[in-house]
Amino acid sequence: MKLHKDDILSLEKEYRRHFINSISGVKTAFLCGTISAVGQTNLSLVSSVFHVGANPPLLGMVVRPPLAPRHTLSNIMETGEYNLNILPLSHYKQGHQTAARYPKEISEFEAVGLATSFSPHIKAPYVEESSVKLGLHLLRRVDIPENLTVLIIGEIQEVIIPESLVDHEGHIDFEAVSPALVAGLDSYFQATAVNRLPYPKVR
Amino acid sequence: MKLHKDDILSLEKEYRRHFINSISGVKTAFLCGTISAVGQTNLSLVSSVFHVGANPPLLGMVVRPPLAPRHTLSNIMETGEYNLNILPLSHYKQGHQTAARYPKEISEFEAVGLATSFSPHIKAPYVEESSVKLGLHLLRRVDIPENLTVLIIGEIQEVIIPESLVDHEGHIDFEAVSPALVAGLDSYFQATAVNRLPYPKVR
Repeated sequence: MKLHKDDILSLEKEYRRHFINSISGVKTAFLCGTISAVGQTNLSLVSSVFHVGANPPLLGMVVRPPLAPRHTLSNIMETGEYNLNILPLSHYKQGHQTAARYPKEISEFEAVGLATSFSPHIKAPYVEESSVKLGLHLLRRVDIPENLTVLIIGEIQEVIIPESLVDHEGHIDFEAVSPALVAGLDSYFQATAVNRLPYPKVR
Repeated sequence: MKLHKDDILSLEKEYRRHFINSISGVKTAFLCGTISAVGQTNLSLVSSVFHVGANPPLLGMVVRPPLAPRHTLSNIMETGEYNLNILPLSHYKQGHQTAARYPKEISEFEAVGLATSFSPHIKAPYVEESSVKLGLHLLRRVDIPENLTVLIIGEIQEVIIPESLVDHEGHIDFEAVSPALVAGLDSYFQATAVNRLPYPKVR
């Protein structure tokens, strides 16, 4: 089928939400840990982490429009920092549950049953159960005026990962990490390795 | 192991490239089709497509700094449009090969052996072999001054997808789509469905 822009806009709202949220494909689910200026911790599911650069090491992520209270965004703006933890497939149900609308005084860590883990370099708590933990400083906030979505660009301050998960060339062993992959709002997948290809050259 | 920012910056260059490119996880590989003002087609591998909004339907993607010639970016700036095609796992080697540095007068479609497919609404050719084809108009270009990377925000103008791949709630059947997933620069994966979870509610 071929849907034009007008067809998409006239889709039933929930159908459009699932369809357009799915269309960016299957990707790794992360949990974003933050802490407010007064010490309230927060944890949220983020499925839109993207690579921005390796030197300096930069990552981007998308956060929803700050129309409703957005604890992750307000904590990042208050403290200038956050962390990203790859959601292990073994805990995908707990990760999904962090997306429920808990009030600000409830920490999603306790509410869903995930353990905190602290580092001296980032105030926000990491997710203990995650094998890939990234601490970031806010570098730049980009507001998208068309729908008030916010892009957060952060600089990686620290990476915490077992040495056994990284090979001598710097590749991460994602079969061993076993991340939860997510498509759209609710569909979870696992990743199976297919192949590693050589650097592509003009033939 | 725990790597701080200074440790990351002092990693050997190729190791850091693989490591930091991998750290954003496994995600769906897309092929970005464009055409220049004088009609030269181009196809490039993009692994950083992200959801920006469902209404209007917006997608973002990252393109490398325009220091070397970047045909995708220059074509998007010339024509204001581009398309994104989910790379089928059956053709991941051809998709990877589009990342070789072909000169501007060579079309990656022919060079790697992928067929073009045209729509009256978007000038750039789609990838015939892809089952999920998205036509976009450039909405906004965001330059990241720290490393000159460019974020392209586009509005979806059309979606071309077999009706059999979308269920009655708008979910896309990604096991049937069978996208190539990629981590870092060279590691390919496939997706296996685990589960679909209900909308998370405070319990």
